[in-house]
Amino acid sequence: MTETSPQPNFDRYDQRIAEAMLSGMALTGLPDYLGIVVTEVGPGKMTAELDVRKEFLNPFGTAHGGVLAGLADHILGAVLLPLIPSGAWPASNEFKINYLAPVYEGTLRASSEVISLSKRIAVMRIDAFNNSRLVGAAQGTVTISAPRAGQA
Amino acid sequence: MTETSPQPNFDRYDQRIAEAMLSGMALTGLPDYLGIVVTEVGPGKMTAELDVRKEFLNPFGTAHGGVLAGLADHILGAVLLPLIPSGAWPASNEFKINYLAPVYEGTLRASSEVISLSKRIAVMRIDAFNNSRLVGAAQGTVTISAPRAGQA
Amino acid sequence: MTETSPQPNFDRYDQRIAEAMLSGMALTGLPDYLGIVVTEVGPGKMTAELDVRKEFLNPFGTAHGGVLAGLADHILGAVLLPLIPSGAWPASNEFKINYLAPVYEGTLRASSEVISLSKRIAVMRIDAFNNSRLVGAAQGTVTISAPRAGQA
Amino acid sequence: MTETSPQPNFDRYDQRIAEAMLSGMALTGLPDYLGIVVTEVGPGKMTAELDVRKEFLNPFGTAHGGVLAGLADHILGAVLLPLIPSGAWPASNEFKINYLAPVYEGTLRASSEVISLSKRIAVMRIDAFNNSRLVGAAQGTVTISAPRAGQA
Repeated sequence: MTETSPQPNFDRYDQRIAEAMLSGMALTGLPDYLGIVVTEVGPGKMTAELDVRKEFLNPFGTAHGGVLAGLADHILGAVLLPLIPSGAWPASNEFKINYLAPVYEGTLRASSEVISLSKRIAVMRIDAFNNSRLVGAAQGTVTISAPRAGQA
Repeated sequence: MTETSPQPNFDRYDQRIAEAMLSGMALTGLPDYLGIVVTEVGPGKMTAELDVRKEFLNPFGTAHGGVLAGLADHILGAVLLPLIPSGAWPASNEFKINYLAPVYEGTLRASSEVISLSKRIAVMRIDAFNNSRLVGAAQGTVTISAPRAGQA
Repeated sequence: MTETSPQPNFDRYDQRIAEAMLSGMALTGLPDYLGIVVTEVGPGKMTAELDVRKEFLNPFGTAHGGVLAGLADHILGAVLLPLIPSGAWPASNEFKINYLAPVYEGTLRASSEVISLSKRIAVMRIDAFNNSRLVGAAQGTVTISAPRAGQA
Repeated sequence: MTETSPQPNFDRYDQRIAEAMLSGMALTGLPDYLGIVVTEVGPGKMTAELDVRKEFLNPFGTAHGGVLAGLADHILGAVLLPLIPSGAWPASNEFKINYLAPVYEGTLRASSEVISLSKRIAVMRIDAFNNSRLVGAAQGTVTISAPRAGQA
């Protein structure tokens, strides 16, 4: 790692899990409502997007902040799935998000990058783009725990 | 204000707006999907809740973090509505959330409190409870701007 | 715990450690430069203050943000000392701070409150006052680990 | 701007201010104590470093978190100086920092990058390295205001 590239090395990267993420694992709950689609997965990186539907808009024609926060929360932990042992689960501890511009109808795409990973804790950064404009930046922490131990 | 009570004084508090919030202004977008209901409004404080429906749950029986983040984002700005001039609009700049415990089926209730308010910027703190257990704590910044200027 | 009081119960509270903190354990590093003095310690709560000396001020007569950030970081972890097993150490994972008003010469006092505590992770909130005005609000996470494992 | 480069374009970049920053403007307060030296300045980017002196260390041989937080807070706003109108001043609103690894004796170097800039508000990301290891990541908001209006 050089000082210009904060991405750490990863001991493990399970290509099959990456492929399962791309082929569209069945979504449940909020990600299903939001229509999140995973478009790229790599070691310590992933990108997902959703269609900003009319029903996400407030009367001013912009999406509620929770749409972006929900997408960010989703990829905050999901980027870890190919990196962690089978049966382990990423549970979000916390994140912080800056809203940089309004989100309009169109595509909302966000990328998550692992900048620090130990056995139990990982830290990620997230960029979000709406119709190619940077609209959000987030940073957060995930605990790597056994299934059922936390919040997915 | 004493050192034990960080709540500032407010120059303005519009009871009619508070009542409109309580009587259930028509929700759109994500808040409508989440089923957010405002239960208390006061000067610089508000509480809202939602029913954690089965469809919000992941396969482990806990709600996606975006449900709590969406609720938090909603009350982060809405608490300002009775405090700001007519026609002004609260646009979320940023917030940070700590997930403290998993969210299960039942009621998810969150309160927002204004701890700092100037003409253009306000800072709020949020507590969230699921079935009376503290499950989340958030803190964030909102810019007070004219309608259509930002993200609601 | 009621919904109006997010303070959890604590299994352990070592009064001798609290008294040692109050009697002025020798400070090193930045806390010594800042002149941090612990003024109150209780179960899951502590208060510390410092004298905003002329040398902390910038040319506009206000203290550098790092003074408040340094004080906040200090009490973020120190509040845990009476609550955790002997030999364990609180290491800051992350925190977020909002600067609410400028800090002038005088007293800068900050209180830390534990809002969530498990064996390994604790979350705290911090309020800071300068000459009785609320000037900062912070929230952060600390990992409870064995000595030498992290950043104090 | 492409989706892989979140750096915005800047209307203004004052090379003389950048050179003054590099030639060592007189530091006051905490930055002087910390011995912060600016090593690179460019449009929307800057790097500064400090020598982690023995006096910054706690008994475990690691630097207090406030050293890194103080450095981060400093470059959070300073990176804006060449970009904003003469007489304007960057005042930190808030920032969030993740501590990724302990900071030992040696060099602590941090870079700040502007990811969003409007007339009144800017958002920056910060990476910090200690002896070439990534030790911190921060993200924060700065209000651009007239002199004396805020916290430097």
